[in-house]
Amino acid sequence: MHNLLIAQSGGPTSAINATLAGVVAEAMISEKVGKIIGGMNGIQGILEEKFINLGIMLTNTDDLDVLAQTPASALGSCRFKLKCSEESDTQYKRIIDIFRKHEISWFIYIGGNDSMDTVYKLSSYCEKHGIQDIHIIGAPKTIDNDLMAIDHCPGFPSAAKYIATTFSELERDVAVYDDFGVTIVEVMGRNTGWLTAASAMARANGGIGPDFIYLCEIPFDIEDFLEDIKSRRDENRNLLIAVSEGIQDKNGKYLSEQVLGNKTDVFGHKYIAGTGKILEQIVRDKFQCKVRSIELNLMQRCAAHLVSRTDLNESRLLGAKAVQSALQGQSGKMVTLYRIQNNPYEIKFSTVPINQVANKEKKIPREWISDNGNDVAQEMIYYLKPLIQGDIQVILENNLPKHIIF
Amino acid sequence: MHNLLIAQSGGPTSAINATLAGVVAEAMISEKVGKIIGGMNGIQGILEEKFINLGIMLTNTDDLDVLAQTPASALGSCRFKLKCSEESDTQYKRIIDIFRKHEISWFIYIGGNDSMDTVYKLSSYCEKHGIQDIHIIGAPKTIDNDLMAIDHCPGFPSAAKYIATTFSELERDVAVYDDFGVTIVEVMGRNTGWLTAASAMARANGGIGPDFIYLCEIPFDIEDFLEDIKSRRDENRNLLIAVSEGIQDKNGKYLSEQVLGNKTDVFGHKYIAGTGKILEQIVRDKFQCKVRSIELNLMQRCAAHLVSRTDLNESRLLGAKAVQSALQGQSGKMVTLYRIQNNPYEIKFSTVPINQVANKEKKIPREWISDNGNDVAQEMIYYLKPLIQGDIQVILENNLPKHIIF
Repeated sequence: MHNLLIAQSGGPTSAINATLAGVVAEAMISEKVGKIIGGMNGIQGILEEKFINLGIMLTNTDDLDVLAQTPASALGSCRFKLKCSEESDTQYKRIIDIFRKHEISWFIYIGGNDSMDTVYKLSSYCEKHGIQDIHIIGAPKTIDNDLMAIDHCPGFPSAAKYIATTFSELERDVAVYDDFGVTIVEVMGRNTGWLTAASAMARANGGIGPDFIYLCEIPFDIEDFLEDIKSRRDENRNLLIAVSEGIQDKNGKYLSEQVLGNKTDVFGHKYIAGTGKILEQIVRDKFQCKVRSIELNLMQRCAAHLVSRTDLNESRLLGAKAVQSALQGQSGKMVTLYRIQNNPYEIKFSTVPINQVANKEKKIPREWISDNGNDVAQEMIYYLKPLIQGDIQVILENNLPKHIIF
Repeated sequence: MHNLLIAQSGGPTSAINATLAGVVAEAMISEKVGKIIGGMNGIQGILEEKFINLGIMLTNTDDLDVLAQTPASALGSCRFKLKCSEESDTQYKRIIDIFRKHEISWFIYIGGNDSMDTVYKLSSYCEKHGIQDIHIIGAPKTIDNDLMAIDHCPGFPSAAKYIATTFSELERDVAVYDDFGVTIVEVMGRNTGWLTAASAMARANGGIGPDFIYLCEIPFDIEDFLEDIKSRRDENRNLLIAVSEGIQDKNGKYLSEQVLGNKTDVFGHKYIAGTGKILEQIVRDKFQCKVRSIELNLMQRCAAHLVSRTDLNESRLLGAKAVQSALQGQSGKMVTLYRIQNNPYEIKFSTVPINQVANKEKKIPREWISDNGNDVAQEMIYYLKPLIQGDIQVILENNLPKHIIF
């Protein structure tokens, strides 16, 4: 019997289960695939043989649709990196033994940077040891959009749509008083500003949108930031500011280290405050005005009721493509998306050697950011616009989104 | 000419503009009403004659639909309380002068507790001074759901639906790792726990939902809270906890005062932390586990892309009812909703003397809370369930919700 194993890893997104649904659907219609095995909690769970039989649990297309709209990894996740096989090959041998025991010929791993590292190490190990009957393919996902060799990462467009929608709603909320104030919205992104940049899309329908957008890619200067705010003080309204959680000064110091150093909080712990909270205090100190900071927190990655249909469709097809590639005998690859053109939006599905992806990071090109560094440039809008297109009719039960819970 | 003035006040909700749309629609079809005047920034703006002509700005039903789905008060808001007329009647005289100048016969004021206080004071002043040709009606809204003499407050059902949906999504998100952790979600509600209670609806589709729900109505005891968490520690999963921002100990002290007293933060200011943040630290100190706190912040009151259709329809009809009542010559009233039965859900529109509402506060009945005080009882579910029913097809432009911006 030739079985297919599928697992997920890394942080949740609203589209990662769409890729899983795509994998299951493509495996369902193949006559080569025996069992469709789900590995719970990523590679860590695989090492513990935490397997479920997805072919029995998901038997019709309605189940697959519900799975596709369920946020976060339905198969669980893990925080686990394989050791280098040169250091120790115990884990690798164990994985291969488990694969043999369960007659696994194809392994699809859905995840971000760390997961592609796992695909890289495991497929390299197989290649090095002449194991040719196990095919390992990575399927990308990450709201951070920081993977190389792909136009955009599945999960990012839905997060971007959530951020754009939320900024447009927050703009209406903070506009109700006609006095000067500042609302700072902290968006996820420790090293890259892709998600924060998506706040600019809130301007699409005539709103002001964020007054300023501060991205990780541009060194953050507190004095410049205060000057930016001062320049709009006379407009007597509530300014809306988008800021990446990971902004750093010109020496690469995160804001928290820079401002707070080794100060301890009221509990006596080293004080690590969120970027938004720190900026809130700085602005209040300077302008003595009403300031609020908002963290979009986990909602930006799990608000599946607001997915981008483009994202969901692409994610499903990438899952299918991963299975197709594995069945064709490919291994050590990541399925990917190339953009042919923006308008009309046209993409191509392909594969790329995993070493072009693993342990690399894609930052925003400088020319996609405004000259003075406190906003995005038009190129970013061209890039983002097609991604947030289309909504789905969410399948409801008791008037709440229906989810698959394994 | 007999003109109608409409204004909004208090904090934003996702349905307050639906009431405005209902007012405009009902005034549009009346042959008694001359101009439909919008007062910007509530009673404060009215004192400054900040008026716009809504009859010119909103001329078709499509505009009204877009207005109804626009979050936050399209006419702006204010933080302003009228002085008692016994203390000083300057403001009252000025308002009546402005009403005469603009030939205003009917004034509808949409808002929460403070706004109903304004309706009460102003209508009492008119009554006392024999002013019979100006009719003042209050239309309720507040996500806090704390107004008396109404089954539920417009805006609350949509916020409740956002909270239920978000908790069900967060549950999926925090469930991806199979180790012990705690996620604390702080929900709005300074004095009442209605919004926090809505998190229980996340259980409707088979999820665990919040493990514990702590409401303002029950004195909060830190030791009991830690015991609750400890009792589920062996389940090796991430617990999800809902907590009202305004929980207090048995002496009525807010958590921030209770735990932090007069301590100063790293900026040297009196430290006022959010309830969620404080509990996060307490849990981390006690269990040394992974803890996260999430504030639903402004999103819970402005996420209009996720309104309850029940809420939107009721809000529109309450706006229409307010106009109808004013045109019939009523004054000093608030339009209200009575619930006839839960299943099938049936309500009745009516009016109530404003003094039964102004400056009062409706708390959750004790029997709607579980015996041990860390969850809701079934009565709360019966109450909430009909309110979150129905979704609307959001009108989009550039694939983002379309909003009216005056």
